[in-house]
Amino acid sequence: MDYTLPEFLAHAIALEHEAAERYLELADMMEAHRNDEVSALFRDMVRFSRLHHDSIVERARGVALPTLRSWQYRWSHPPEAGGEEAFDVTLDAYSALCYARENEARALEYYSTVGQQSSDPEVHRLAAEFAAEETEHVQALDDWLARTPRPSTPWRDDPQPPPSN
Amino acid sequence: MDYTLPEFLAHAIALEHEAAERYLELADMMEAHRNDEVSALFRDMVRFSRLHHDSIVERARGVALPTLRSWQYRWSHPPEAGGEEAFDVTLDAYSALCYARENEARALEYYSTVGQQSSDPEVHRLAAEFAAEETEHVQALDDWLARTPRPSTPWRDDPQPPPSN
Repeated sequence: MDYTLPEFLAHAIALEHEAAERYLELADMMEAHRNDEVSALFRDMVRFSRLHHDSIVERARGVALPTLRSWQYRWSHPPEAGGEEAFDVTLDAYSALCYARENEARALEYYSTVGQQSSDPEVHRLAAEFAAEETEHVQALDDWLARTPRPSTPWRDDPQPPPSN
Repeated sequence: MDYTLPEFLAHAIALEHEAAERYLELADMMEAHRNDEVSALFRDMVRFSRLHHDSIVERARGVALPTLRSWQYRWSHPPEAGGEEAFDVTLDAYSALCYARENEARALEYYSTVGQQSSDPEVHRLAAEFAAEETEHVQALDDWLARTPRPSTPWRDDPQPPPSN
């Protein structure tokens, strides 16, 4: 986990880009569910992720970045999306917020681990700054979760999807 | 799982596009590992996926397709890519082949389930045809796995990644 600056910047750019893409999907989905409040939250997250992305791209100007593979930065699938029932999944607001929170927490853990372990002072400084931003995102999602009704069958506690036929 | 034709075509197009993207990544990675034989296999898979993708797009001409979310068709992550150690993963040839096989088998299962359950005769016919193609891909990957040396610590049997510090 002792990242060079180019490695770290490449990961951060990819993470923020991925986050913006996923928040856009979630916003569209919440809009289709007629949940305008949660949709607006996700659209804010799209904007924050893009701003952060662009500022890191700016910081990386002139730095030769390594190529990353999609699985090195992609969000994990929502828990329902396991087998081929993946193709029927739609998320309620509560599950969408949980899904986003899980991925933000993963990004937070990534940045904070890199920040603690890196021997490069610039990586150390940037990673700590990015971890602080992710902490705010996790906090915002927690606030929304606290005031969002839990669905009657919470997906986290549901060991098997209901039969689909 | 009783898909309309537009739903089915949208999924099939997204699945083939995703497969081509992932095979391109795997081919590049195998090339970086100096494994030209496995890289060539993955480049063939890129080509087959693109051809198949293009033929489905052609079939869907004039059909209004629904929008899909990324988690409705994305490949699953390689098993190693769980926590933030995700960011260090590189796959050996054996693991790359296993990963590809797992996702092809998931696509096969998807197509064959849709084919069996659909009440639309055109969906039924196309899904059966696509399932047969996926069966060939799984078979090709199995042939390669049979002649590829297994790494000394197979990832499937390794409950914990080695400590990274």
